[in-house]
Amino acid sequence: MFRTLTVLVENNPGVLTRVASLFSRRGYNIDSLAVGQTENPSISRMTIVVEEGDKVIEQVTKQLHKLIDVIKVSDITEEEYVDRELILIKTDADPSVRGEIMQIVEIFRARIVDIGQNTLTIEATGDEGKIRAIIEALRPFRIRELVRTGKIAMLRGSRFNTVENGN
Amino acid sequence: MFRTLTVLVENNPGVLTRVASLFSRRGYNIDSLAVGQTENPSISRMTIVVEEGDKVIEQVTKQLHKLIDVIKVSDITEEEYVDRELILIKTDADPSVRGEIMQIVEIFRARIVDIGQNTLTIEATGDEGKIRAIIEALRPFRIRELVRTGKIAMLRGSRFNTVENGN
Repeated sequence: MFRTLTVLVENNPGVLTRVASLFSRRGYNIDSLAVGQTENPSISRMTIVVEEGDKVIEQVTKQLHKLIDVIKVSDITEEEYVDRELILIKTDADPSVRGEIMQIVEIFRARIVDIGQNTLTIEATGDEGKIRAIIEALRPFRIRELVRTGKIAMLRGSRFNTVENGN
Repeated sequence: MFRTLTVLVENNPGVLTRVASLFSRRGYNIDSLAVGQTENPSISRMTIVVEEGDKVIEQVTKQLHKLIDVIKVSDITEEEYVDRELILIKTDADPSVRGEIMQIVEIFRARIVDIGQNTLTIEATGDEGKIRAIIEALRPFRIRELVRTGKIAMLRGSRFNTVENGN
């Protein structure tokens, strides 16, 4: 089962290595990891997706808490949350198919961010299902290059997941 | 100076740890790192932003090339590229200020993705300048939570940065 963990850490050199090696040392496979600053620049937040059972997640959470620089670990898998990923796709697009590609871009509320002689570069955001769908829709045109950020997630409603509050 | 590296790697367990520890062992500070699948699911691409001089970058690039699982390293800093980051922001938004926030969302071509009793959650994408600007525009309303993906980048035009081609 895929589990989504959010980990708040002090933004110190080496913290990413320490967190990543905790997973790799034990052979746990990280499906996706995104790391970026939070509302407080000295604190970063990692969103980590792992495919492991409950027992492993419990272990990992305990071990993460023991790491220096780790402030808070939350398993939000069972919570209501918004999750999003950003993708850039460069696809072949000679003038005869540009119109068709632009329709797909519109359907997915994506954006064209660059144009080459025979290519278009498209930016899209969405949950995993939407990202998968836009890739499939563009595949017939020949995808030349594709970059993804990894998923980030935030609890729905007025609840927060920050250093200040306790949950 | 900030340098942007794209690193293509075999999607094997531990590869993230190996890459991250190469930086941390030498005390090089990673400003941003994003990792995600490419057009080939067995290959991942990391976009790494580091603040270091030319000499260090040259060293790092050489060392990265020596790592098992690393296929290709490109320093695209001097190239023409599109770069984007995704951000989720949860801000206080009681009904009296919602209209004002929605105007900001429109100006930045951002999107409201969730609404709580007194909060709005906003999704935005852009380069670093735009991300900084939307954070500043929303700060007066009180930002409760903020998650960023780290930046991803793609060369402009019809040039590719994939395993198949040589540059």
